[in-house]
Amino acid sequence: MEWFYVTPIAGLAAVGLASYLYKYVTGRDSGTERMREIAGAIKEGAKAYLRRQNLTLAFFVVVMATVLGVLYSFYALREGDPLGVYHGVSMAVAYIFGSVCTTAAAYVGMMAAVEANVRTANAARQGLKKAFPVAFYGGAVMGLFIVGLALLGISILYYIFNVVLGWTEIKASKIVLGFSFGASALALFAKAGGGIYTKTADISADLVGKVELGIPEDDPRNPAVIADNVGDNVGDVAGMGADLVDSYIASIAAAMLIGAEIGKPSLTILPLIIAAMGLFAAMLGAFIVKLSIRGNPGAALNRGSFATWISFAAFLLIVMYFSGLCDNWLGVFLPTVAGLIAGVIIGVTSDYFTSIDRSPAQKVARASTTGAAINILTGFSYGVVSIVPPIIGICAATLAAWRLSSAFGVDPFYGIAISAVGMLATVGMTISADAYGPVSDNAKGIAEQSGLGEEVIEIADKLDAAGNTTKAITKGFAIGAAALTVLALFGAYAHLVDITTLDLMKPEVVAGIFIGGMMPPLLSALLILAVGRNAERMVEEVRRQFREIPGLMEGKARPDYAKCVDIATKGALKELMLPCLLAIIMPIITLIALGKEALAGFLAGSIVTGIIFALFMANAGGLWDNAKKYIEAGAHGGKGSEAHKAAVTGDTVGDPFKDTAGPSLNTMITVMSLVAEVFAPLIILFFVF
Amino acid sequence: MEWFYVTPIAGLAAVGLASYLYKYVTGRDSGTERMREIAGAIKEGAKAYLRRQNLTLAFFVVVMATVLGVLYSFYALREGDPLGVYHGVSMAVAYIFGSVCTTAAAYVGMMAAVEANVRTANAARQGLKKAFPVAFYGGAVMGLFIVGLALLGISILYYIFNVVLGWTEIKASKIVLGFSFGASALALFAKAGGGIYTKTADISADLVGKVELGIPEDDPRNPAVIADNVGDNVGDVAGMGADLVDSYIASIAAAMLIGAEIGKPSLTILPLIIAAMGLFAAMLGAFIVKLSIRGNPGAALNRGSFATWISFAAFLLIVMYFSGLCDNWLGVFLPTVAGLIAGVIIGVTSDYFTSIDRSPAQKVARASTTGAAINILTGFSYGVVSIVPPIIGICAATLAAWRLSSAFGVDPFYGIAISAVGMLATVGMTISADAYGPVSDNAKGIAEQSGLGEEVIEIADKLDAAGNTTKAITKGFAIGAAALTVLALFGAYAHLVDITTLDLMKPEVVAGIFIGGMMPPLLSALLILAVGRNAERMVEEVRRQFREIPGLMEGKARPDYAKCVDIATKGALKELMLPCLLAIIMPIITLIALGKEALAGFLAGSIVTGIIFALFMANAGGLWDNAKKYIEAGAHGGKGSEAHKAAVTGDTVGDPFKDTAGPSLNTMITVMSLVAEVFAPLIILFFVF
Repeated sequence: MEWFYVTPIAGLAAVGLASYLYKYVTGRDSGTERMREIAGAIKEGAKAYLRRQNLTLAFFVVVMATVLGVLYSFYALREGDPLGVYHGVSMAVAYIFGSVCTTAAAYVGMMAAVEANVRTANAARQGLKKAFPVAFYGGAVMGLFIVGLALLGISILYYIFNVVLGWTEIKASKIVLGFSFGASALALFAKAGGGIYTKTADISADLVGKVELGIPEDDPRNPAVIADNVGDNVGDVAGMGADLVDSYIASIAAAMLIGAEIGKPSLTILPLIIAAMGLFAAMLGAFIVKLSIRGNPGAALNRGSFATWISFAAFLLIVMYFSGLCDNWLGVFLPTVAGLIAGVIIGVTSDYFTSIDRSPAQKVARASTTGAAINILTGFSYGVVSIVPPIIGICAATLAAWRLSSAFGVDPFYGIAISAVGMLATVGMTISADAYGPVSDNAKGIAEQSGLGEEVIEIADKLDAAGNTTKAITKGFAIGAAALTVLALFGAYAHLVDITTLDLMKPEVVAGIFIGGMMPPLLSALLILAVGRNAERMVEEVRRQFREIPGLMEGKARPDYAKCVDIATKGALKELMLPCLLAIIMPIITLIALGKEALAGFLAGSIVTGIIFALFMANAGGLWDNAKKYIEAGAHGGKGSEAHKAAVTGDTVGDPFKDTAGPSLNTMITVMSLVAEVFAPLIILFFVF
Repeated sequence: MEWFYVTPIAGLAAVGLASYLYKYVTGRDSGTERMREIAGAIKEGAKAYLRRQNLTLAFFVVVMATVLGVLYSFYALREGDPLGVYHGVSMAVAYIFGSVCTTAAAYVGMMAAVEANVRTANAARQGLKKAFPVAFYGGAVMGLFIVGLALLGISILYYIFNVVLGWTEIKASKIVLGFSFGASALALFAKAGGGIYTKTADISADLVGKVELGIPEDDPRNPAVIADNVGDNVGDVAGMGADLVDSYIASIAAAMLIGAEIGKPSLTILPLIIAAMGLFAAMLGAFIVKLSIRGNPGAALNRGSFATWISFAAFLLIVMYFSGLCDNWLGVFLPTVAGLIAGVIIGVTSDYFTSIDRSPAQKVARASTTGAAINILTGFSYGVVSIVPPIIGICAATLAAWRLSSAFGVDPFYGIAISAVGMLATVGMTISADAYGPVSDNAKGIAEQSGLGEEVIEIADKLDAAGNTTKAITKGFAIGAAALTVLALFGAYAHLVDITTLDLMKPEVVAGIFIGGMMPPLLSALLILAVGRNAERMVEEVRRQFREIPGLMEGKARPDYAKCVDIATKGALKELMLPCLLAIIMPIITLIALGKEALAGFLAGSIVTGIIFALFMANAGGLWDNAKKYIEAGAHGGKGSEAHKAAVTGDTVGDPFKDTAGPSLNTMITVMSLVAEVFAPLIILFFVF
């Protein structure tokens, strides 16, 4: 058990390092008056959005916690547990704690990003080498703080319930599951809401600004421009951070629960220790990034990532070998490494299919010369083809984890769960590198809006471009890990409701598979329609401002930025409700209407289409984006050519694919699995099947 | 057994009626010199394509038949059957017979359509009431001939093997399965090849003609125009006919096999008798269409369809009640009717989501006013949302069929199979109404090319528009029926390889589900990329002709139509190979690499994503098409407006969705299920799992 303490230590260390980096970032100079003004507006908008989002979601969290608390109290009472209410309250508290941790981390991370934006832009005036650390540390605050807080939260909960209160491993792990459910449900709302927000603002700003009026991107005359910048922060930073960390927590919770059910206390805490090793490796990786910045920020980020992966494997090997936590340690170590390798492979192939230097993006660019339709068809098709390597990677990881753990006498479901933990353990570094992207993107925006000159903008551009490869790898990791996590959760569900085999020939199971399979595409479609509707409202407002505010077009008057921020905020919060609530309600409806085996089918169906759509949407979106950038770099007539116009259409189609719908899907399938796990025992008891 | 003879009688009657209608159509006047010339070119092109396609596929059929023959011979010998080789040869012959029947029927049907095109155009000069029967009968030849021939083929095979040679019901049903595999494999090639052909020509003709040179659609100066017309025939008539009939045969084969395995001879022939009733009802329906034409061809088609459905239910009730073929006849009758009702519901909701008069298409049209990107996002999203009602319909039909048959003591898998037969029994009418569409579309093209004047074109337009609702309903039927058929085949497969329950927790099954789920989207993407590549070649040729043939643009010289036909033909035959062979090989690879349970998972995965993608692609394509037509009818600025341009982009994206990829998917999943069924016992024997 003494090894357990490594987990809160890692969590505390990460939170501490994040605080130090936050201070470092905010200690930099924030530039000219104009820069501070713009940054202030972005900060205001982002804060306003998060405040309103948190207020809206607080209501939902309280309702959900009450439902959980009441149901679990009854459940425990009926099971003959005299402390039933106590159990119910604990579950509700864990749920709220999970929501609050995620919210707090996203808030802090986003604030760090917002502070880093303007300071990166300012540092870029002194060159790339000065600007890069500011942008990277800005992102790293998010990465380290959110992961550290998650690990700290889980270990505190587990310590209180298992060590202090003396609950069994299984019961304490279920409390961790409640924490995970809180984190995931919140992540789904944050990702969906942030995704709608960012694309609403982006599309509206582009449609009126670039297309109708012909003014450049990030032009301060455009009333939607601040909303667009806010969107990059709430969507890409806060949303993506919440998204990755939710899979992280879920994979740990699933592995702990399976470990507890096997009946070995050491296997219950092992996932936490693996995660702690990953977090130490991530901190080391961040240090390597800092050390290796020499003109090429992309190479530094990659070096940091590889250093993280390798040192994680090394730390793990040492701990597993010397700790004696697991007799057959190879049966845990090998699946973990298999997960890590699969994650890297999935990331690298994602990068191939979306990278600007590779054949698919260039073929999409060439297709643009025959018009927007062929551009879209080609991007769509290569996006779909790109799912092949990651899906084979996921299958290989599943098979490898299963067989390697069985071979060494470890429960194979534990093997799969631990392989997911392995894929996600280094997520602290992944999120840091990922959050770096929007920080440098925003720095570029601020540099343009405050007229810092071509040279500074070019440096900001270089910073921005470096984020792309990492971004593709991150998405691959996120989706692959979600697949393994959900498989582990699926196994935990089946165990929980006593399904040993599932009869694929039963009509209820078939119906469950179809309905579950339908959910991810349906959610995507609803989110995209939400973006469309919301953008329509905002486009009207932007047009109105240009029409009614005298002198706006001439740059003599200020637009009403706040109005646009307000429309995006209200719209996003209104529109996210239906798809997110469907994700929570549909598993419950399936369970009540068709039974527990139908729900297992539902989960299986949703995993398959969820992964397929998540991969296809992320990669197709990336492809279209880079095809456009390839043309903008001079191919096929460059900016302003017919091919460029076609490519811009493709990019606009891809925007909500890759930034709204796609990233919400892996969270959605995690949430649906957790709903099944958390509610199934209760509902089965009350509806008596 | 005497009831069995109703089947060949129905088949013969349908073939006879088709011949009569063929004579009726060819007996009409084929119009002016110019019209005959154009029609001749289309006929030549269509014949040339089919000849080359058949030649290419003949090679494939022979190879496949040899493989089947050899494997089945060995299998039977090893099973201790002294007549092993005899068994193998029978299987090979049944396979070839199935391919030949489908090919012959598609050929005859297409020739009838080609003959009907020009005669419909000519009859339109005397008014709508004269033209409609020609177009409808032209389509009905296809519908009745292909269904009649299929039923005749199955009953002859079954008669020879069961009655004459005295084979058991199970063995004779397996021969029917061989026939079905031949028909489906050929249908897949025909549909994919025809789909690539038609969209290659369509997109090329539009891109160079309409977009680059600004000449109207179907302008005789365009070198691709004949290829485009040929494409409507080979893709929409021959391809769609082959597609629907393959599900029809597969559902009958699956039901017969399950019936035989239950061990009741009457249940083995019952699917044939149900199909015969459906065919009689279809002939009656065709007659009703003829009777009820009074100015509104759409209403006449609908009346005919409803008459078919109702009389089918009535015939079936009478036969089931009086024949005594089944003690618990309600257990067969009710699932059949449930299938029929589900088919109608699926069709009607498909119609809602694609119809020009309904909210989705109009919303897509409105979205076009904010540009092509929003048009595409909106169409994509509503296309995805449109899968919800049919999927719920399929689930309801599955549950209803299962429970209704169990309730009356009939084997529930037989109930599902028979419900698929019920959905498809009236397919003679469905194909007739569906083939009517391209006939009237082509008649319009011929009228335009031969300058028959506004009035005639308007009549042709009305004929064309009437086909749209029927087309949507047909597609709904085809996909719903394919789902049930494949479920029945899945059950038959599981029975065949002795899987009673499938462990969704095994990694092989999980891998199978993922790989199977990946196949339908992958096939779609490959087909769409094929269209793009092929269109690129053809666009170059069309541009070359305009550049190099002097006087072409002025209408003084004739373009080289044949060259374009040739490019489309060669390209389509080359490009269809990879995706189609993947569909045949991947189930076998999965079986060999991961075992029989993985293959069951593979099939389950492919059914779910296959149905989802088939529905989404068909409906999104229909939506974009009708949104464009809605704008062309005058909304949002009408033809030539910015909204119209955006809508044209959407329509071009939708074209290969709805006419190439979407319709191939249901055939693909049927083929994959049949491959599993036909090859699994052999491979399991040889690789000894």
